Amino acid sequence: MLCLTHLTDPGWASVALADLPRVLVDHAHCEMKAATNALSLATRTPASPDVARALVAIAEEELRHFRAVLDLLEQRGIALGKPDVDAYAAELRKLAQKDGKKTPADALVDRLLVGALIEARSCERFRLLADALEARGDALAAFYDDLFACEARHYTTLIDLAIAASGDEAAVRARLAVIARAEGELAARLGNKPKVHG
Amino acid sequence: MLCLTHLTDPGWASVALADLPRVLVDHAHCEMKAATNALSLATRTPASPDVARALVAIAEEELRHFRAVLDLLEQRGIALGKPDVDAYAAELRKLAQKDGKKTPADALVDRLLVGALIEARSCERFRLLADALEARGDALAAFYDDLFACEARHYTTLIDLAIAASGDEAAVRARLAVIARAEGELAARLGNKPKVHG
Repeated sequence: MLCLTHLTDPGWASVALADLPRVLVDHAHCEMKAATNALSLATRTPASPDVARALVAIAEEELRHFRAVLDLLEQRGIALGKPDVDAYAAELRKLAQKDGKKTPADALVDRLLVGALIEARSCERFRLLADALEARGDALAAFYDDLFACEARHYTTLIDLAIAASGDEAAVRARLAVIARAEGELAARLGNKPKVHG
Repeated sequence: MLCLTHLTDPGWASVALADLPRVLVDHAHCEMKAATNALSLATRTPASPDVARALVAIAEEELRHFRAVLDLLEQRGIALGKPDVDAYAAELRKLAQKDGKKTPADALVDRLLVGALIEARSCERFRLLADALEARGDALAAFYDDLFACEARHYTTLIDLAIAASGDEAAVRARLAVIARAEGELAARLGNKPKVHG
């Protein structure tokens, strides 16, 4: 179902488990960034009330996840701190902007597709993390199993919103393939780090 | 309870009622801006997990209000459109930034106090609007009556968070008085428009 062109290296899960505090901190920031990104799109022309509502619903779910990860950090005595520079999201966003002049509708579609790809990558990584946690009998496995399902849902919703905003499903699927290839190459280039993305 | 130094001109409510569609559109954007502003502070150093949680709770409530105003717009066939340039919020934020070099804690306190002042002004205006709507037998009065109470709560929470972030209540109250005076002069200068602020 996910459109990822490059699967994450299987070694990523060990790197993540070896520095779980850093993954949790990065994860909290990712949830917050996903929420604020959804909100920044919600009032963007030409978003309709239905698009705005769907994006606000995604943001609200990301905020619930942010609070859940914040609880985990606090239970473990880990400080949230400021977010690191997010090379992955910044490069993806640049890529969506650079392809010549766009109508506001094209720009919205691109931002929705970039959001969908980020959700797809989180979804894939949370599956790997849930399996690795499960294998070592860690209760946190269930948490990442739940989040895996949510991210998959967000991915589908964002693609559906892009199709609704564009009105041309074939064009959206073609553009998704272009952005997915760039995302795959970027994720592969960033390699295995104890972070949710790249 | 509110610390406003300049009360809104009583003529504002008639100006607002005369162009209620524009007030509703502006109100929807205000709720969204309040939500995103609270979230941008939630992961800001030196915010503690409790501060982050309280700010996320405020953002979640603002998003519920945004959805409620979006419903009202849709029922009335009014398009949301893009937000206008917000001279009121921009000037207030500039004011909080300009007073010399600040520690991150001072900057956070200032942003919390600016947020509190914006909530105080919304609170005052929603009271005026609820009363004017009530006087003409408009069912929307109950909606603004509820929001009046929420904004008052957010005002109090943001002041409490500023005191907690600073640890020096007297200093926070003194700074609040300075920002409140500037906010009052700004609101008076912006005059009566069919908008929530200035």
